[in-house]
Amino acid sequence: MVFVLSKRYGYSGRLLDILSSRDIDIGDRIQVRKKNIVVEGLLMPIETGLGSENTIILRLDNGYKIGVSIDEDTEIILVSKRFESSVAVEYPKRVYQNLPRISLISTGGTIVSKIDYETGAVKPALTFEDIIEWIPEITGVAFIDAKEVMNIFSENIEPKHWEIISKNVYEEIVSGVEGVIVAHGTDMMTYTASALAFAIRNKPVPIVFVGSQRSSDRPSTDSILNFKAAVATALKAPFSESTIVMHGETSDTYALAHRSVKCRKMHTSRRDAFQSINDYPLAIIYPDEFKVKVVNNVIYEYRSRDKDPVLENNFDDKVVLIKSYPGISPEIFDYFVDKGYHGIVIEGSGLGHIAEKTISSIRRAVEEGVVVVMASQCIFGRVNLNVYSTGRLLLEAGVIPASDILAEVAFVKLSWILGSKTRDLKSVAELFNKNIVGEINSRHVLNHYPRWFY
Amino acid sequence: MVFVLSKRYGYSGRLLDILSSRDIDIGDRIQVRKKNIVVEGLLMPIETGLGSENTIILRLDNGYKIGVSIDEDTEIILVSKRFESSVAVEYPKRVYQNLPRISLISTGGTIVSKIDYETGAVKPALTFEDIIEWIPEITGVAFIDAKEVMNIFSENIEPKHWEIISKNVYEEIVSGVEGVIVAHGTDMMTYTASALAFAIRNKPVPIVFVGSQRSSDRPSTDSILNFKAAVATALKAPFSESTIVMHGETSDTYALAHRSVKCRKMHTSRRDAFQSINDYPLAIIYPDEFKVKVVNNVIYEYRSRDKDPVLENNFDDKVVLIKSYPGISPEIFDYFVDKGYHGIVIEGSGLGHIAEKTISSIRRAVEEGVVVVMASQCIFGRVNLNVYSTGRLLLEAGVIPASDILAEVAFVKLSWILGSKTRDLKSVAELFNKNIVGEINSRHVLNHYPRWFY
Repeated sequence: MVFVLSKRYGYSGRLLDILSSRDIDIGDRIQVRKKNIVVEGLLMPIETGLGSENTIILRLDNGYKIGVSIDEDTEIILVSKRFESSVAVEYPKRVYQNLPRISLISTGGTIVSKIDYETGAVKPALTFEDIIEWIPEITGVAFIDAKEVMNIFSENIEPKHWEIISKNVYEEIVSGVEGVIVAHGTDMMTYTASALAFAIRNKPVPIVFVGSQRSSDRPSTDSILNFKAAVATALKAPFSESTIVMHGETSDTYALAHRSVKCRKMHTSRRDAFQSINDYPLAIIYPDEFKVKVVNNVIYEYRSRDKDPVLENNFDDKVVLIKSYPGISPEIFDYFVDKGYHGIVIEGSGLGHIAEKTISSIRRAVEEGVVVVMASQCIFGRVNLNVYSTGRLLLEAGVIPASDILAEVAFVKLSWILGSKTRDLKSVAELFNKNIVGEINSRHVLNHYPRWFY
Repeated sequence: MVFVLSKRYGYSGRLLDILSSRDIDIGDRIQVRKKNIVVEGLLMPIETGLGSENTIILRLDNGYKIGVSIDEDTEIILVSKRFESSVAVEYPKRVYQNLPRISLISTGGTIVSKIDYETGAVKPALTFEDIIEWIPEITGVAFIDAKEVMNIFSENIEPKHWEIISKNVYEEIVSGVEGVIVAHGTDMMTYTASALAFAIRNKPVPIVFVGSQRSSDRPSTDSILNFKAAVATALKAPFSESTIVMHGETSDTYALAHRSVKCRKMHTSRRDAFQSINDYPLAIIYPDEFKVKVVNNVIYEYRSRDKDPVLENNFDDKVVLIKSYPGISPEIFDYFVDKGYHGIVIEGSGLGHIAEKTISSIRRAVEEGVVVVMASQCIFGRVNLNVYSTGRLLLEAGVIPASDILAEVAFVKLSWILGSKTRDLKSVAELFNKNIVGEINSRHVLNHYPRWFY
């Protein structure tokens, strides 16, 4: 595997001649000097939509890609060769294989994708060669074994997919890798990442979910920073929980590793959309240095090669999530009971309430063996059914309060308990009230609630 | 109306003798001096559960109530009489009636309640006398006309109650008051407050929703600060929108007036649970000074006596809110279509997605005249159905994107359009895309997203 401009990567004519004459390849660090500006970055292949044939594409250190137009007076200087720091240009695969090994399980979404420089289309990066062409900095850091287990938008992922993904991740873990990265669409990532927290326990190494809010074909893509941070977490994190690694703030300085069961996508488009809820993130990740700084001193699973992971990956697909709203009809509960569902998670209001007129149908559901759990649409804070009379009526009807578990995670946990553990109501309640992988945080502090900018 | 300790308010024996001998009444500012401490506050009636017969109850300036045990060496000093600053002790009702007049519409919840000092029970404060016994500082500031239109927990409030509340508020407005306060349970307050934003337009004066996260019988109650802030807003705010006035931070310094249609209850129990989403709050309220500081320079309705309010308060109760989750069945859409529902708001994922397998049922719903709107469970940010193929399929199926409208507010807006305006799909879409009372904010800035404390 050699990266030379003979492959051209879209460059042609005079510009190709200049690059070739200076021995500059894709991934090399170069400086472009024009009249009043000096720009430094890694040489990237030409992309459709970014400039013309007289444009050179650089990836800046902050992850942004820019096109710089080249004229008569422009100087192009080689700063350092791509592989100089760690490996030779002609880099045989067996050398890579002596590096720490990480698995990459692709499920879809826009994170692990590279531009097809012939067509401009975005394609999944499925080989290690694809990945280091996409992010040259990973060269010498780790060998990444990539595997595509599905390629679907995350809004189409269902409990049956959680079973496939967790089985694949489990197999990678037992094969002895240093960590597993799961590339996943961001929309429903917290659901899948929570599912894996429950499905694989006693984890010897971290499971790291990563995605991107801006796809790789956009200059403002967050995929490079996020992926480098995911590699750092998979390699170096002292914890071995299921985590979500995404941008920590809107600029390009660091990423955060969130505990999957305490994390939520809180923004439709921002790069720092993922945030920890009712808990601190596990670590701040500095991707350029591949550095992991632990910031949460409560860790439930530590990295250790001595552990034998446990796979319990059956999820009950007869569980529903119902958000309460004014005028909600009791009939909706009867409908799901009559349809043979096994579990209902209610996203109630405030401390965990729903219109009193629904309680007789909820009681009937419980009597017919359907497990009913109450979470809160407030998102922050904790359900408490002992404060008001509506709560006490729900407790009497057999509803299980979700404590401070997010409604989305309560849905996953209930599906897992019913699928992998038990359907006996009393045993379900016991397991639900038990903190299994950090989904319940018994100690909230003021700083778990964010501050608004007023 | 005279407040004298002859009414006793629970005090007895030696303590009553001391208070009477010093001419100290309920509401007077006093100092209690013990060996090493001096405590100053307003004398409050004895409360069940707060101390014994040798305990004096003070309300401190930060709103907290404390019990101070009295022994031989304790000194009790009168600092100022309750009414000294503004009015005489014997204060005839006709004098109050020359003050600015506010209406208080009670719907339930724990805000406007006072302790029954005989039984310790919490009872609604339904007369002006009740209110100034509860919050003496309001004396001389405003005359408050209190009216209970219902007394129910907010989780039981339905669109039909929105109609009753808005009719009552409208009648108070046209009677010429300076502002209307609506006391409401916090759980579902944002829904009702949004309903009134749409139901009464061209408002000459503000409609101020207020509630309490800790009921009035608890020493840490937020009801006093919130109610004083609501009075300030009703009297003095330059805007005449439907607003929610609640604690701004966890200590007792200020409250915030949020635009109802851009506000959400974000915590189950914190006093600063209510926060503006995708917008700034309208104003910071300093309750002790009854001061309103406007902080949002985009105001949709200004206070003006010249305006004639419009009442359009029919709400369609055949609207549902469906939150998407992994494995959601298309059948749930068919169920509501078959049941004769008129509108569905989907709380989708990310930019506004839902599993592709549901789209044929969604298309069928639209074809049968059911309006389908897409909001996002991310809460922050804006729906955009043009980015990914799932979104484009939803657009083709006739789904209306909710822009940056909260799912809860989209539910209310759709119920209002279908009930008060039109059920013609094209006209509904036009109205839905139109910014009617500030529910759409076309300009998001970075600071609309809160900062987490990591």
